Amino acid sequence: MTPMARRKVKGNHNVSGLTNSILNPDFDLTQYLNHKRGMVSQALNDMIQAHFSQSRLASAMQYSLMASGKRLRPVLCMAAAETVGELTPDVIQTACAIEMIHTYSLIHDDLPAMDDDDLRRGKPTCHIQYDDATAILAGDALLTLAFEILSDQIGPPDLSARNAAIRLRVIHLIAKAAGHNGMIEGQMRDMEAENAVITLDALKKIHYLKTGALIEASVVAGALLAGADARSIGQLKIYAHNIGLAFQVADDILNVEGDAAKMGKATGTDASRNKATYPGLLGMEKSRQFAAALINNALHALEIFGNKANSLAAIAAYIIKRKR
Amino acid sequence: MTPMARRKVKGNHNVSGLTNSILNPDFDLTQYLNHKRGMVSQALNDMIQAHFSQSRLASAMQYSLMASGKRLRPVLCMAAAETVGELTPDVIQTACAIEMIHTYSLIHDDLPAMDDDDLRRGKPTCHIQYDDATAILAGDALLTLAFEILSDQIGPPDLSARNAAIRLRVIHLIAKAAGHNGMIEGQMRDMEAENAVITLDALKKIHYLKTGALIEASVVAGALLAGADARSIGQLKIYAHNIGLAFQVADDILNVEGDAAKMGKATGTDASRNKATYPGLLGMEKSRQFAAALINNALHALEIFGNKANSLAAIAAYIIKRKR
Repeated sequence: MTPMARRKVKGNHNVSGLTNSILNPDFDLTQYLNHKRGMVSQALNDMIQAHFSQSRLASAMQYSLMASGKRLRPVLCMAAAETVGELTPDVIQTACAIEMIHTYSLIHDDLPAMDDDDLRRGKPTCHIQYDDATAILAGDALLTLAFEILSDQIGPPDLSARNAAIRLRVIHLIAKAAGHNGMIEGQMRDMEAENAVITLDALKKIHYLKTGALIEASVVAGALLAGADARSIGQLKIYAHNIGLAFQVADDILNVEGDAAKMGKATGTDASRNKATYPGLLGMEKSRQFAAALINNALHALEIFGNKANSLAAIAAYIIKRKR
Repeated sequence: MTPMARRKVKGNHNVSGLTNSILNPDFDLTQYLNHKRGMVSQALNDMIQAHFSQSRLASAMQYSLMASGKRLRPVLCMAAAETVGELTPDVIQTACAIEMIHTYSLIHDDLPAMDDDDLRRGKPTCHIQYDDATAILAGDALLTLAFEILSDQIGPPDLSARNAAIRLRVIHLIAKAAGHNGMIEGQMRDMEAENAVITLDALKKIHYLKTGALIEASVVAGALLAGADARSIGQLKIYAHNIGLAFQVADDILNVEGDAAKMGKATGTDASRNKATYPGLLGMEKSRQFAAALINNALHALEIFGNKANSLAAIAAYIIKRKR
């Protein structure tokens, strides 16, 4: 479990600046996150048992996949499904595949040719623990395994036309979000932006591509698999877009405030690399206000779901609460 | 066009050691390959126009994808479809996606951390033309785009249950072949086998994983999309398994015989890296006999298809003919 998760998260009714009634003070987010993270870890473990051989490659994949991540994307995928319908096995399967894609992106981003990070979640990064070639291949393999799992047909072989078509749609939207017009382009622009002067809009775009697109895909995928209609999908996209950006703003703030122990990685690295950040462009106080405004937008988008959206609302509040 | 393709390939009836009647002397393989490669290049170009923005990342993806490859896998995918049914748009789409996966694997294999090759198909490799980080991301993006394209729904939105289910099956088998129990594990073992003494069986296994698995998936994917029954799939798997191995044996032989101009890459590199090869383990003459025996197995497996398999048969013969 991450240091952040270890801190008790209580009801979100008194988070400053967040006043939306969709925030239920009786909702126990800590219990919810622990439960959902446990489900993801269990499902990932089952997949590892079913898929992995005793190879160095599989060992490296497992090493990074089972590092103590926040599991934010899979939890969002599952919470979105519960908001509009039911948490079915194919939602959990999809949530795990998304976590594999997220993990691969971290492995490759940490490589010496990219961000050159030695530490991730308090542990040596994959290329430090193994070697560069193994890390490149482990990343490739996790990305590929994600699509193997997404296309694995759970349930009766006479999958209905609607189910199969939805599954294809989910694969398509995840691939798009993770690809050259999404996450990968975000990493490319993030590297290009080092030592460069960029505008606030350019920074938002980088973060939307690098982080927001896959977060949005996680939410939409869960909702689609649970049978959401177009209006619900539209509202959930607004929610996801806003929390995705808020997550990055909060991360930048944490990076300034935090210490190495809390973050599990060296802090101040963004500044030392001359990367543009929200605190750098807006100042700390305006960055905090910006994050709160984004979360309020997200909460507003959830109102049509009523109490069913308690989990998504609490997660949104947690994204900016975790900095305190 | 590759130097190999430039040499006129005539009818295959007089290839020594190949006597199967499935080899039609009137079949014009040169024309067939040119036509099919043209279709693939055109379709890839259309995809680039539809998908790519003016970015460094897209430029690197396009650079490697449009380098003059043999397009063996997409041509096999299309030929398999024609052998059992029709060449439909989703077969071409799938063939292109497979070429993207093949291209990504070459980009990553060429990286300094892996095989460290500066030249590929007579041109600077992606990381030489661009840089390591861009090459890693361009590879990642081509792999991801392959799945975006495989899950793109061509045709009427009311895709029948059968079609959507087949599409999922095709995605699944391609991901499996390209993944940690297929191509990526093959590259891992290939690197581990450098400077090591390995058996013929271990070498065969490495090559099946590294090259054979995706070749087999190309053939099976094309056949599945064209509506092949289980018996046909079984025979085509035997065909693909044998030509996949023969392709690697022929490549090893070419590597000993060839000169740098002909291969478009430095020759003798395998020996200088102390990599196990078939000529190294078996000698040149026995390697040639082994390749011919594999192709005969492949031709035998095609007999149930009669004249419909002329293209697949000619391609099989070409695989060992190209060394002369």
